[in-house]
Amino acid sequence: MGDSAEMIFSGDELLRGDTLNTNQPYLGERLLELGIFATHALCVADDLQAMVAAIRDSLSRRPVILVLSGGLGPTEDDLTREAVAEALELPLEHHEELMEQIRDRFVSRGFTMTENNRKQALVPQGASAIPFAGTAPGFSLVHGDTLVVALPGVPWELKEMWEATVEPRLRSHRGEGPSGRTGQNGQTVTRIRVFGLGESIAADMLKELDWHGRDVTIGTRAAIDGLTIIVRGQDTPEGTKASGAVVARIRELLGERVFGVDSDGLTEVTDELIQRSGLSIAVAESCTAGLLGKRLTDVPGSSDYFLGGVTAYSNQVKTDVLGVPEGLLAQYGAVSEETAAAMAQGAQALLGADCALSTTGIAGPGGGTDEKPVGLVFIGSVVHGVTKVERYRLFGTRDQIRERAAYSALDLLRRRLLDETAAPGAPHSTSRS
Amino acid sequence: MGDSAEMIFSGDELLRGDTLNTNQPYLGERLLELGIFATHALCVADDLQAMVAAIRDSLSRRPVILVLSGGLGPTEDDLTREAVAEALELPLEHHEELMEQIRDRFVSRGFTMTENNRKQALVPQGASAIPFAGTAPGFSLVHGDTLVVALPGVPWELKEMWEATVEPRLRSHRGEGPSGRTGQNGQTVTRIRVFGLGESIAADMLKELDWHGRDVTIGTRAAIDGLTIIVRGQDTPEGTKASGAVVARIRELLGERVFGVDSDGLTEVTDELIQRSGLSIAVAESCTAGLLGKRLTDVPGSSDYFLGGVTAYSNQVKTDVLGVPEGLLAQYGAVSEETAAAMAQGAQALLGADCALSTTGIAGPGGGTDEKPVGLVFIGSVVHGVTKVERYRLFGTRDQIRERAAYSALDLLRRRLLDETAAPGAPHSTSRS
Repeated sequence: MGDSAEMIFSGDELLRGDTLNTNQPYLGERLLELGIFATHALCVADDLQAMVAAIRDSLSRRPVILVLSGGLGPTEDDLTREAVAEALELPLEHHEELMEQIRDRFVSRGFTMTENNRKQALVPQGASAIPFAGTAPGFSLVHGDTLVVALPGVPWELKEMWEATVEPRLRSHRGEGPSGRTGQNGQTVTRIRVFGLGESIAADMLKELDWHGRDVTIGTRAAIDGLTIIVRGQDTPEGTKASGAVVARIRELLGERVFGVDSDGLTEVTDELIQRSGLSIAVAESCTAGLLGKRLTDVPGSSDYFLGGVTAYSNQVKTDVLGVPEGLLAQYGAVSEETAAAMAQGAQALLGADCALSTTGIAGPGGGTDEKPVGLVFIGSVVHGVTKVERYRLFGTRDQIRERAAYSALDLLRRRLLDETAAPGAPHSTSRS
Repeated sequence: MGDSAEMIFSGDELLRGDTLNTNQPYLGERLLELGIFATHALCVADDLQAMVAAIRDSLSRRPVILVLSGGLGPTEDDLTREAVAEALELPLEHHEELMEQIRDRFVSRGFTMTENNRKQALVPQGASAIPFAGTAPGFSLVHGDTLVVALPGVPWELKEMWEATVEPRLRSHRGEGPSGRTGQNGQTVTRIRVFGLGESIAADMLKELDWHGRDVTIGTRAAIDGLTIIVRGQDTPEGTKASGAVVARIRELLGERVFGVDSDGLTEVTDELIQRSGLSIAVAESCTAGLLGKRLTDVPGSSDYFLGGVTAYSNQVKTDVLGVPEGLLAQYGAVSEETAAAMAQGAQALLGADCALSTTGIAGPGGGTDEKPVGLVFIGSVVHGVTKVERYRLFGTRDQIRERAAYSALDLLRRRLLDETAAPGAPHSTSRS
């Protein structure tokens, strides 16, 4: 069903475990958006014969595109040019236009080109150069049904070249190729962004959805800043209608847990809400120790609303700087609804902010008790003078608990800013996990 | 030279880009420690014939080990058992011992085994089961010179099974295998941890090292928390001597930039130094907005010395909470040596700490000027009443600049704690990039 793609990554560093291959998921996702599924992705050692064999093996399966990545530098280990030429039985030729570009690149950076770099202007006969932004040029050529593309291994160089040149060439290759394919296997992809729901709980909730037989597939991707539910449908009127119905049903099922559809992440979505509210914000952090302030300022321009905060790791800072009453700390403990409320109120008052968030909890791995186990976190919020505290039971490592606590605080703020009907009142606690 | 390994990963999620393949670098590194270099690592679609062909292709190169990962679950997509059986022309057999383990696993978790799970007790004839900790069992068998191993795709399950069972079986396979290999290709690996030095500058400095022809190889791995220089030598008396000499020379060349050899990361190393010093610490953050406090508390037990801090993102918080004089801010600006010094002193006084760190800089992407460009960061420190400020010019995205600033602050504290000969005096600035 539809076109297939293959990838070959060269570089001993990938096989030694020195480098994580992030190009593969990037290319896999980009190809899928064009309705092309990658069937093989191979990392192969910097060895000419191994590369030649891998290229031939791949071409024997007649993919619509074979992407090679890496091995285009100037050193002896860089063998992709030679391997493609040998696999396709083509001579390597000097590409003068490419040579000019390489020379210009060196001049503009104030470096002198070395003799080695001349090698980078060689391409297999008939190949077209791919304009490049970094240091390594790439090339493409058509072999049978297959568009063969060679790109550098450096992720940002590969991405720029993919988007600017390879994707247009691939579209044109598919539209005008010998088999007259027109990309009719394209898919629509909708990404529903969710916070506060585990992957297995989401799977259970989604089980009731009857999408089978409607050519709609549902995938989930879990990350620390939430879950993405990926709904894929066929790019046809019926397919669009079917996946639209599934998306609508998921939104209905998950309600306020959904923070966006085809949107940015939780941080950016919350940031935009704060910006629009015109409110300033301060934080008081204990277990997150600064991470919440860091998250609130991940987005450029956050100085418009983020004033700062107090990290009160020791109890003395909670009382002396934030004004949490000593008696309250003694009665309820640092990890409590009452302390979370007092911390948020203290930060709001000290910094003169419109709203405030606070975190206090047990990040672990030590310090937990039966009554207050590792992962117990209280998140306080003050918005329009109204204090609310939520209780969380978070799981994972120390780092995961702290990340989840910071994102949970962002999400609480998001929900409070959305919920303008919040009734004023005393500190109020709800339980979440 | 020496044994080679191959890996085959099955799972459409790897090819669609939904999942990053972290098993590959893990296995690559573990194999290399045994002197085995992986020459091929393939991700292949969940398709029986594609998997059978890949397994046969791999075995034709006669690696000492072929590791398969994924495809061992109970669903129809899980095809590894069938693919190995078909590639090796062996029947699948029910493994009663494995069945018992699977059943026990379900009972201990309070689940009921489904009919599907019976499939997980099938192994190719002659294969040995690999005890498992998660939900999917694995198996191994010897085919010709090759130890064929099938492991689950879930990273922690794979790691546990690799360490507990596969590595011992591999050692035994190499020692007692048909070709009588005894693992004499083992390598020694030394990891030199460095902060404050770019990869290309390190490469230039290391160029003068004459390690060629001595069977010592040097690799570098750059990360945001520093550079790791990996020195690999042969595991023989001469090899150990040669790599020891290279390690000693690198330490000499790089001096105080080296924060550890075969050590933990910068955070852990700095943490240990603070612990040993018995000093308490506070922070005052502007551009890092809490990230420095977060880093200082990444290590459990940091509440012994970390009191907390003030994030002074707005100038008003710098003056009102940290006591930075308004006149000083007006004269030098928020991003200046003077403000960094006053912030650190303010945090030290407010929180009553023994020492303090501060950060102020331009994280970008906007806000830079010719005089104060994006990436300009001042880091202040107070130790034993002595204030020192360092000036940095950091590169990268907003996030990278903030991460580098936080790590630079940790590194400044590390060097100051090591340098007990620091002369007391007025704020003092040195330039670093």
